[in-house]
Amino acid sequence: MKIGVFDSGVGGLTVLRALLERIPSADYLYLGDTARLPYGAKSRATVARYAASSARFLVAQGAEFLVIACNTASALALDVIRDAVPVPVLGVVETGANAAQASSATRDVLVVATAATVESHAYLLACEQRNLRALEKACPLLVPLVEEGWIEHPVTSEVLRIYMSELMTQAVDSALNPDTLVLGCTHYPLLRAQIERAVPMRWRVIDSAAVTAEQVAGMLEASGGAGKTQFFATDSVTKFRALGSRFLGRPIDGVDLVDLGG
Amino acid sequence: MKIGVFDSGVGGLTVLRALLERIPSADYLYLGDTARLPYGAKSRATVARYAASSARFLVAQGAEFLVIACNTASALALDVIRDAVPVPVLGVVETGANAAQASSATRDVLVVATAATVESHAYLLACEQRNLRALEKACPLLVPLVEEGWIEHPVTSEVLRIYMSELMTQAVDSALNPDTLVLGCTHYPLLRAQIERAVPMRWRVIDSAAVTAEQVAGMLEASGGAGKTQFFATDSVTKFRALGSRFLGRPIDGVDLVDLGG
Repeated sequence: MKIGVFDSGVGGLTVLRALLERIPSADYLYLGDTARLPYGAKSRATVARYAASSARFLVAQGAEFLVIACNTASALALDVIRDAVPVPVLGVVETGANAAQASSATRDVLVVATAATVESHAYLLACEQRNLRALEKACPLLVPLVEEGWIEHPVTSEVLRIYMSELMTQAVDSALNPDTLVLGCTHYPLLRAQIERAVPMRWRVIDSAAVTAEQVAGMLEASGGAGKTQFFATDSVTKFRALGSRFLGRPIDGVDLVDLGG
Repeated sequence: MKIGVFDSGVGGLTVLRALLERIPSADYLYLGDTARLPYGAKSRATVARYAASSARFLVAQGAEFLVIACNTASALALDVIRDAVPVPVLGVVETGANAAQASSATRDVLVVATAATVESHAYLLACEQRNLRALEKACPLLVPLVEEGWIEHPVTSEVLRIYMSELMTQAVDSALNPDTLVLGCTHYPLLRAQIERAVPMRWRVIDSAAVTAEQVAGMLEASGGAGKTQFFATDSVTKFRALGSRFLGRPIDGVDLVDLGG
């Protein structure tokens, strides 16, 4: 089984990392559409066009199953991607909402994500479809802090303390009794330990990378392969390797540069 | 005199703000190419194409003098812009380097900027042409902190303390004796007071917005006009208004949406 993993950048490597741990025998194709990132600030039509061309590329390379590790593409373009390719497609917003549904006893969940994901209200909608009440909060400083490499860092702890206390206040103001926090951005798993320290003990923290790997494994239980991983990027492979290895948790050797057009 | 001010986003409004204070009688056209930002991660050819089309738009609207308030476009595309339009063009990298030359007695200057500007080494080159030694440092957390609105904020003070102490260590390691710090990003003037508190008293902090306005005023001393300002953006005018008023220091009323193509 060849699994294609797509993200606009390197963040989706946290999903690939979890997949490699959970299904090590499968083959993987990872595409980071780094020339056209960030998707977050772009219109739905543009994101759909970029994501569909990226999905078609992965299927043309042999992918038999696609994981959309990009929150923005999952939020804005999952239907378009499904129409564009003849293979099963799973997105991180769905898998995060599925995990929240399984986790929450109070039916009240919180979601932290980038501003673009929050503005799309994709998690809110996915939660409502699962009979959950959800409160979404944008945490725009977390991605740059992760990309700066400030993981175990007092500034990051303080930023998380501020964001999480604002989130708790908003939950109280909305008369919610949350017991589950969804990390709705592929960068956030790198901060999971710090986030868990910043929230009440009783909250379950849902790492969308881990739960996505879990759900893919459930769907592809018997999948075999050669355990081979290939990387593709649409801009600087040097930058992809350098930043990406932090997200993958191991060095990245070969990255192929691909041109998907404007 | 109608002065066109161009940036990829709202940051250049700090330059417009300084121009409005220094030359209030002129007319201004401001264009933020918000649909195609950020320029920082894009190739020289793409930035040049976007910047040239933006410059031509402003001249078509009547601009008789262009200020390139975008550090990336100034660093990568000033020659292309000058070839594209028949009016005088001034870029913030030049004006920052001019001010550093006038300020520095030791001939050693420091520059803080975004990662993309630092990687282009445009300030280093501009300083070398003026017989100055320069050390550039990327401060990638400052733009998101400003956009989050955390100006007078303990997290921002701590981030600045860390960046500035790293910069001082690097200056010592490079055997430099700096007396001037150039703020090489249009977002940084909003943090000027905090930056001045974080560096040695004897350093002169060069705010590229203010020095650009000063140099434009020197070139257009007798310029008259109706004191009218028009705003154009290539993506969401709502977002431009909301974020932009913080940079301009006053409310922004009308913004025209323009389509400059892909």
